[in-house]
Amino acid sequence: MGSNVDPGKNELELFLDGFPSLADHKSQLIDELQTITFPKGSILIREGQPLNYCYFVLKGCIRQYVNDEGVEKTINFFTEHQGVVSFSAGPDNRFSDHYLECMEECMVIRGEMNGGGEMLEQIPALREIIGKMIEADLGQTQEELKRFILLSPEERYGYLLQQRPELIARVPQKYIASYLGIAPESFSRMKRRIVNRES
Amino acid sequence: MGSNVDPGKNELELFLDGFPSLADHKSQLIDELQTITFPKGSILIREGQPLNYCYFVLKGCIRQYVNDEGVEKTINFFTEHQGVVSFSAGPDNRFSDHYLECMEECMVIRGEMNGGGEMLEQIPALREIIGKMIEADLGQTQEELKRFILLSPEERYGYLLQQRPELIARVPQKYIASYLGIAPESFSRMKRRIVNRES
Repeated sequence: MGSNVDPGKNELELFLDGFPSLADHKSQLIDELQTITFPKGSILIREGQPLNYCYFVLKGCIRQYVNDEGVEKTINFFTEHQGVVSFSAGPDNRFSDHYLECMEECMVIRGEMNGGGEMLEQIPALREIIGKMIEADLGQTQEELKRFILLSPEERYGYLLQQRPELIARVPQKYIASYLGIAPESFSRMKRRIVNRES
Repeated sequence: MGSNVDPGKNELELFLDGFPSLADHKSQLIDELQTITFPKGSILIREGQPLNYCYFVLKGCIRQYVNDEGVEKTINFFTEHQGVVSFSAGPDNRFSDHYLECMEECMVIRGEMNGGGEMLEQIPALREIIGKMIEADLGQTQEELKRFILLSPEERYGYLLQQRPELIARVPQKYIASYLGIAPESFSRMKRRIVNRES
């Protein structure tokens, strides 16, 4: 390996150590999987661009947002060991309806949509792990949808505080407000209300 | 075959005809997959019960709802050729937080969660088809979440009219209102507004 190896390869190696079933294929995976380190502020995809790639976050935080008639609306944040993948809901969905922005320097594995077939043939354990990840992703998206239907913005903030406290510390508060679907000023008032209630 | 064969087996056979890659295993699948026909009004699972099964709708319509402090809130409707599966978002999610109710007589394939391993070993094409279905399900759930974040109830109704017009005709309107997150009276007013606008 040369000196210009992407630092993501080290993160990838650490990550793969967590999967004993991949041990026999570790060096192949480190060689063949494409890791990229994007600087903070990078836009990985824009609205209207073809959905060519999926990502897996080794380190960093990626924000997904849409442009709703000039207003940015934050849909999700992806952090360590989350996949970032938009499956087509139909044949018309081959183009992105959203943006992906790196909130920090981000080390990712980048895969081609519908790619990697040969590697999956060779390493059935990898296919199984990816299948489980997609199932978990579906479970999380189902939960997220239910929370959106059932909870108020304040309750969703409480959930975030409990489940992803590190996210609130890492991300500018205006994006958390946008994710909760409220104006930044209302978000500040809401946080003060919660602090006053608890003190 | 005896006379008490579940009529779902015929639907299953018709459905399998759509998958040439499964042709060699068709009779095995018809034998081994469990089809059940539930009468209209059946409750397939209640809040708090263990998530033992997943379903695939061959014919019929299943409503998913939660009980939000005494008020039923409709989360989704599953119709022909949709899977009904709740993947755990975590180890605490082995119990259902929702109800599934048959809006009509429903013919379904019922599978055990984490079951079917042997059949999937024997029929790799089945594994591939199920994998694609889960991906499509994830895509649809991601889309649904985005619509919830971005669209007003009226816009979501417009989307439903365009994408699932048959659903609106099949399901009591109070459940469509609940799905859109509005009171039945507001829903009636909204529909009149739309009709007046278009006439």
